[in-house]
Amino acid sequence: MILKGVRALVFDVFGTLVDWRGGVAREVAPFLRRYEVACDPAEFADAWRRRYSPSMEEVRSGRRPFTRLDVLHRENLELTLLDVGLDPETIPSSEIDALNMAWHKLDPWPDVVSGLRRLKSGFIIAPLSNGNISLMIDIARRSNLPWDAILGAEVARAYKPTPEAYLRTAEILGMRPDEVCLVAAHNSDLLAARNCGFRTACVPRITEHGPKQTSDLSAEQDWDFVAKDLEAFADVLDT
Amino acid sequence: MILKGVRALVFDVFGTLVDWRGGVAREVAPFLRRYEVACDPAEFADAWRRRYSPSMEEVRSGRRPFTRLDVLHRENLELTLLDVGLDPETIPSSEIDALNMAWHKLDPWPDVVSGLRRLKSGFIIAPLSNGNISLMIDIARRSNLPWDAILGAEVARAYKPTPEAYLRTAEILGMRPDEVCLVAAHNSDLLAARNCGFRTACVPRITEHGPKQTSDLSAEQDWDFVAKDLEAFADVLDT
Repeated sequence: MILKGVRALVFDVFGTLVDWRGGVAREVAPFLRRYEVACDPAEFADAWRRRYSPSMEEVRSGRRPFTRLDVLHRENLELTLLDVGLDPETIPSSEIDALNMAWHKLDPWPDVVSGLRRLKSGFIIAPLSNGNISLMIDIARRSNLPWDAILGAEVARAYKPTPEAYLRTAEILGMRPDEVCLVAAHNSDLLAARNCGFRTACVPRITEHGPKQTSDLSAEQDWDFVAKDLEAFADVLDT
Repeated sequence: MILKGVRALVFDVFGTLVDWRGGVAREVAPFLRRYEVACDPAEFADAWRRRYSPSMEEVRSGRRPFTRLDVLHRENLELTLLDVGLDPETIPSSEIDALNMAWHKLDPWPDVVSGLRRLKSGFIIAPLSNGNISLMIDIARRSNLPWDAILGAEVARAYKPTPEAYLRTAEILGMRPDEVCLVAAHNSDLLAARNCGFRTACVPRITEHGPKQTSDLSAEQDWDFVAKDLEAFADVLDT
């Protein structure tokens, strides 16, 4: 078996397991209509997401102490509202808070729930996401994702792709890095995990960024495993 | 409803949910026989457990940086072996490691799995234990405890009853302390949680320490709720 010795599978979540673009667009659409903003909801989701990595970089660089993603999302939302011509100061704070919860209401791709259920029979399964714990709990409860635990940036106190995000996760599991396999749609995430000694499984999601996606359309290295979705992954692992 | 406004139930685990004394005794019995140690396995479990709180006190006091419970258990095991006349230096390290995993193999009281399943329909449920994450994962997988997340000392980086163990758990959940209820068999744990603003539910476990138990035989304060077990708790919460 190609993943011999692996005892835990940890998963990237945004894009790999859940459709953040479609979910955020759905949640912001009524708000944009109400405020008569002429911005496509999916493009608003893209703009909000573009601020994701730069905001984490403040933490990764050490310029800012660890700050959970809900807080970064909230700050990035205010900036995105300004981008589309809305002054967040003129909007009730509770309404912006509610909008920020869009990230807690994302739906998984169709293969995810059944795939995770099968994979759980053979491995400890947990998210290794930059999303914070309560965000991961809400996504999991919404769709019955059968996690054994919620791991990731908030537990490790480090954002991917910082090595500590992977290495502390393995340590928390009580495992060597090569006993843990990262499952992700993003080649850069897989590379960072591999550089920490993790095993790697690539599940490309070619519509994560919509129909015009140009990045991560396929596996760009010889990852330990490449599968079209989690069901196919479970098939080969025979779980 | 007596727990109006509560959105998450967090649980003490050792004693409240699982029978640590019986489980540890079962796991150490073959070892004690093999090494011809004339010590009752349950009394060995008691002796090992007596070193639990003092070892955490080193961390709680700040004299020692946060150290996960598996490590403290391992150190305490060596001391307990010395107590019964065995020099741990003469025993293969792998054998002591295996013995230390006794705490990962504890079974729940009979009402726990069904009770948690019912409670999960109305609340976010998570352990708030001093046990580390991988220990909690192993106990949960063994008996299908349906946790939404593994919270507790390792996530909060603080051992109960330090206030930070409770307060950081509420913060991680994105909730005010009074939106979280601690479920525990131990009056001291409940008191510490109440002092942090948590709601409290007492589930006495009068055989946790065996037939001669003298402490925590009943609720010693007017906790928000007292139930004989988790099924009874779920009955009243109507979940």
